[in-house]
Amino acid sequence: MTDTATVAPKADPMLHEDGSPERLAIDTIRTLSMDAVQKANSGHPGTPMALAPVGYTLWSKFLRYDPKHADWPNRDRFVLSVGHASMLLYSLIHLAKIEEIDADGNKTGKEAVSLADIEQFRQLSSKTPGHPEYRHTTGVETTTGPLGQGCGNSVGMAIAERWLAARYNKDGFTLFDHDVYTLCGDGDMMEGVSAEAASMAGHLKLSNLCWIYDSNHISIEGATDLAFDEDVGLRFDAYGWNVIHIDDANDTAALARAIETFKSTTDKPTFIVVHSVIGYGSPKAGSEKAHGEPLGDENIRLTKQAYGWPEDKSFYVPDGVIEHFNGAIADRGAKLRDEWVALTDKYRTEHPELSAELDLLLKDELPEGWDADIPVFEADPKGLASRDSGGKVLNAIAAKVPWLIGGSADLAPSTKTDIKGQPSFEADNYGGRNFHFGIREHGMGAIVNGMALSHLRSYGSTFLVFVDYMRAPVRLSAIMEVGAVWVFTHDSIGVGEDGPTHQPIEHLATLRAVPGLDTLRPGDANEVAAAWKAVLKDASTPAALILSRQALPTLDRTKYASADGVEQGGYVLADSDGTPDVILIATGSEVSLAIDAHEKLSADGVKSRVVSMPSWHRYELQDAAYKESVLPRAVRARVAIEMAGSIGWDRYVGLDGATVTMSTFGASAPLAKLQDKFGFTVDNVVKVARQVMETK
Amino acid sequence: MTDTATVAPKADPMLHEDGSPERLAIDTIRTLSMDAVQKANSGHPGTPMALAPVGYTLWSKFLRYDPKHADWPNRDRFVLSVGHASMLLYSLIHLAKIEEIDADGNKTGKEAVSLADIEQFRQLSSKTPGHPEYRHTTGVETTTGPLGQGCGNSVGMAIAERWLAARYNKDGFTLFDHDVYTLCGDGDMMEGVSAEAASMAGHLKLSNLCWIYDSNHISIEGATDLAFDEDVGLRFDAYGWNVIHIDDANDTAALARAIETFKSTTDKPTFIVVHSVIGYGSPKAGSEKAHGEPLGDENIRLTKQAYGWPEDKSFYVPDGVIEHFNGAIADRGAKLRDEWVALTDKYRTEHPELSAELDLLLKDELPEGWDADIPVFEADPKGLASRDSGGKVLNAIAAKVPWLIGGSADLAPSTKTDIKGQPSFEADNYGGRNFHFGIREHGMGAIVNGMALSHLRSYGSTFLVFVDYMRAPVRLSAIMEVGAVWVFTHDSIGVGEDGPTHQPIEHLATLRAVPGLDTLRPGDANEVAAAWKAVLKDASTPAALILSRQALPTLDRTKYASADGVEQGGYVLADSDGTPDVILIATGSEVSLAIDAHEKLSADGVKSRVVSMPSWHRYELQDAAYKESVLPRAVRARVAIEMAGSIGWDRYVGLDGATVTMSTFGASAPLAKLQDKFGFTVDNVVKVARQVMETK
Repeated sequence: MTDTATVAPKADPMLHEDGSPERLAIDTIRTLSMDAVQKANSGHPGTPMALAPVGYTLWSKFLRYDPKHADWPNRDRFVLSVGHASMLLYSLIHLAKIEEIDADGNKTGKEAVSLADIEQFRQLSSKTPGHPEYRHTTGVETTTGPLGQGCGNSVGMAIAERWLAARYNKDGFTLFDHDVYTLCGDGDMMEGVSAEAASMAGHLKLSNLCWIYDSNHISIEGATDLAFDEDVGLRFDAYGWNVIHIDDANDTAALARAIETFKSTTDKPTFIVVHSVIGYGSPKAGSEKAHGEPLGDENIRLTKQAYGWPEDKSFYVPDGVIEHFNGAIADRGAKLRDEWVALTDKYRTEHPELSAELDLLLKDELPEGWDADIPVFEADPKGLASRDSGGKVLNAIAAKVPWLIGGSADLAPSTKTDIKGQPSFEADNYGGRNFHFGIREHGMGAIVNGMALSHLRSYGSTFLVFVDYMRAPVRLSAIMEVGAVWVFTHDSIGVGEDGPTHQPIEHLATLRAVPGLDTLRPGDANEVAAAWKAVLKDASTPAALILSRQALPTLDRTKYASADGVEQGGYVLADSDGTPDVILIATGSEVSLAIDAHEKLSADGVKSRVVSMPSWHRYELQDAAYKESVLPRAVRARVAIEMAGSIGWDRYVGLDGATVTMSTFGASAPLAKLQDKFGFTVDNVVKVARQVMETK
Repeated sequence: MTDTATVAPKADPMLHEDGSPERLAIDTIRTLSMDAVQKANSGHPGTPMALAPVGYTLWSKFLRYDPKHADWPNRDRFVLSVGHASMLLYSLIHLAKIEEIDADGNKTGKEAVSLADIEQFRQLSSKTPGHPEYRHTTGVETTTGPLGQGCGNSVGMAIAERWLAARYNKDGFTLFDHDVYTLCGDGDMMEGVSAEAASMAGHLKLSNLCWIYDSNHISIEGATDLAFDEDVGLRFDAYGWNVIHIDDANDTAALARAIETFKSTTDKPTFIVVHSVIGYGSPKAGSEKAHGEPLGDENIRLTKQAYGWPEDKSFYVPDGVIEHFNGAIADRGAKLRDEWVALTDKYRTEHPELSAELDLLLKDELPEGWDADIPVFEADPKGLASRDSGGKVLNAIAAKVPWLIGGSADLAPSTKTDIKGQPSFEADNYGGRNFHFGIREHGMGAIVNGMALSHLRSYGSTFLVFVDYMRAPVRLSAIMEVGAVWVFTHDSIGVGEDGPTHQPIEHLATLRAVPGLDTLRPGDANEVAAAWKAVLKDASTPAALILSRQALPTLDRTKYASADGVEQGGYVLADSDGTPDVILIATGSEVSLAIDAHEKLSADGVKSRVVSMPSWHRYELQDAAYKESVLPRAVRARVAIEMAGSIGWDRYVGLDGATVTMSTFGASAPLAKLQDKFGFTVDNVVKVARQVMETK
């Protein structure tokens, strides 16, 4: 054992006397974590060992959670932003005896995480993957691992609680009053996304939010002061948080006092800085070597010895520990939930409309007739920007779906995502539906995910090019299968004068590449309506709606096919008789260009077909017969037209087709000049169409 | 004019008396900015109008810059992080009479920004695009617009100055002592990337760095307090910066004192908070309406009236203004540069080796024999991870190229990017070459770009999945054509147990989609060597090196083709006699899988070819004949194999080929299990190869 770093727990006055249920439970969490990582020969033992007293105190003494009903809507949320410390969470879930809820929402009566599951840590299909996965393991509130994301999610969850309370709580009916706790680490604190989210939480005075920051002074490369010596507490003062310091993570009494202070604070979020020793009690304590690799058998033996633990036992849960831990949580949680259920029954009678609304919300369903007022747009050669039609459609739906809420990263006047006549969500009005996320795209993404995890149909919007700032939350929405809607406008060189830094080129491809994300780029106002409709029907598929800055003609749907084809992702919009000589495939603003080229080709006697392809994701889900009806295998003369990079289009045009796309960054100029420069003209499309016809 | 917001400058005691050269110059900047935006009918007038006194004071009184030699290496750097305020910068460049340096580095003697250029603001091919573009307009030190990036770049530039000073300054030879100034706004301050960069700058005690924060309380959606009311100054205290407040942007004397304080501060960076009025002097002053749209002709008239400016004149530069402004800068700058040139001449004699090295560095060239010690790796079926071979190659080059410097976002022990035997770059050792960027990928990206802009061959590394956190700087490296090297390891489901949050799927596609970025995924150690060689030869193409966590066999290059083919991006690695029946195309860890499948197919009498395709970017630059020699058009039975999403591969396999790729996120398990689950086995590749042969 090293001299400096090891802390011998027996000599530690902060610890309760050996053999106490508290001490046993804490050391059970520690040893389960060590053993699981060792058996997997992979993982992160040090943080669970350090934070076991924090997890223990928070869960056993405070968390309002019914282990038999992990889906209780008013449960406190526990977010493990330090996702690599997953064994801490799995240990807590196991000891709390949380019961499983399966993918269909049914309670199976099984343990969410059994001891056998813990022994299968990080193995294929186990309930205990390397990082906690939402939907996969009951008790996991959000998928974490990429640092800072859990922090952002937790702000979204705290917002959701405040919004739900503002809308559904009535005199005598406090349906929502839960808190959100987040365990975060140095990595979370260094990431900009947590800074953005923290600034937002302070601004919104989210007093239901508590971040517990594990300050262990260790990162992968060594001591954090290699790169990080700012005064984090002072920074949170600057954000308007209540900041509390705890000198020793093992001081459970101090922890409890701090959490009490949090609970009695009503005007700001709370930030508890806990100083801990990574790999506590082990020979590697206080060293980066305790972070991301198994301790080794001999070190585990020595650590167990230091804990006063049976050295020869692995995955050992002493008698009484589960009873003690589960008991504390279940007693409190079951009682609170029972009261809540009784209250909601009464609420059903006294507030039947709100009650029915809440039921739908919690089931991720939509009210009858939610899409009845979506406008049908008349044919109009001048048309309107799809961001504008998007705003109209959003507003038509929002009038029927009160829990459709969201906002923009300071671009709402441009993205057109304001819900008209509705107030802003602010500290003095938590019932507002318009969110001002500030110029914080990354924070917005993580926050919107957190809101969606609490069943709010949430959207976040910015310019498409700035999806670069929020890739991680977009990806996580897809991994978690939450129905967040990302509204990205200013979708091409159509941005014009702002130039290459603001003109997306590769961004459509980067979104289409995300598994399970539905990226839709509608071609006119009626496709926008169909797209919003398609997207909201499915609360477990996140979507990216890609909208134009510039006006798009509204197509004459009596002449061309209905926009309902959006549902299938790609459809034949315009056609000639018989087998086409050439197929033009387009999305968004290029659909009308393809139509114009089609008309010109038709006038010249060329049989062309126009396929509008707003969503590759949806198109790929269609069966082979449908795809053959849209893009017949035998027709190889194909041209894809899109004011974006070509990558991916070869799937539809093949080796014999061509693309009219961007191969470089754009330029600063009015759009018409750019269209000429980059070949987005009828003449050029016709020329390329004739070329591919000749080649074939 | 509105009552509340307009500030009539004549009544403003902070302003110098009318007609003073200072006042004239400041109002010239303001009116040029208004007029240019108005003529373009697009742009951002409000911030240039507010910050004209800041730009004036900084440039005329402090900036060490020789307008005739904009490439003087020891010039102070001015970064306009608020890139939308580009007219401020163009006005300054015009009034300072900065002279153009063309794309080849030649001095043309022309104005970098003429009045005619300003009249062409935001027009195609003009020198005055919507946001400032590096390489496009002389005097622009970095491309800005995406908020926060300029802040990060400036930290990199300040680091570069400190590093250059540490290495090349000698007794009596202060070759480097320049400062870096950044103008930033509320948007910059809200973005997490600036928080990351500021924390890093405070940690590194970069006293040569000064951020001037324009606090105008206005964002696009309205007053900043809709979303942002933190104490920014206090936050910078927490980062360890020197914080100075100035109540009025028009108080040029206070500004000058603040900058003097910055210049005399030696132990920390300086943050000057300047309170300003957006759209100063106009009827829209103090309103978001002054931010991003033309003021309108009538408002411009009223504003000019308020300034005491000729109302009927547009693009008016009063006599004497250029002489006054350029004179102040040129006198100081030319003198300093002349002294510097004399000093470097003397340095050439007294420190010939360092001088020769510095010459190479500044010309973006590499020393003779820089690649001589790159190892040749012997064939080895067990092989080594490409991150490991990457580390060895990097070290072999670093020994010869002292200005190859970089580091990791706290993952160096895993990304293997440490330069062995070299100290860390820290506040007490600015000569160090290993950078600890902390868990701040986004900040790292922006900082590395700033270092590259100062001619350091810089690299930043993290796990591939975390490129999601740093997309914007990667994109900007491509827009700016700076030769930053991004080292992304743990490049596939090969990550194994860490699971889907840590396993890149779409990331290769998202990088390949960036125009001008060279994304290379080498297949074995010798391809790694060839990749590093190819990448460093070209200082104007950024590259992403994609490396594996797991061991890759080192191929027997006596049996298969030389790894020199990496230079062409794709090459025939293994072949059969005559026209192949099927072509297997692979990158990275799947190259050896393709080889194994090829051997099996050969044994079964099938003629297969293996194409290693580490860089699509390079391959696409080859001529048609070369491409035909690698992927003959007639051979349509093709299989692409890559442990990543399929998007883009259709370009090479076409409608008749197939891919063995990932169509979902990964899972947490040991890699061998994942390879079975997802079909990355010889049997499956052979099966798919036979299927495409049958279909054709």
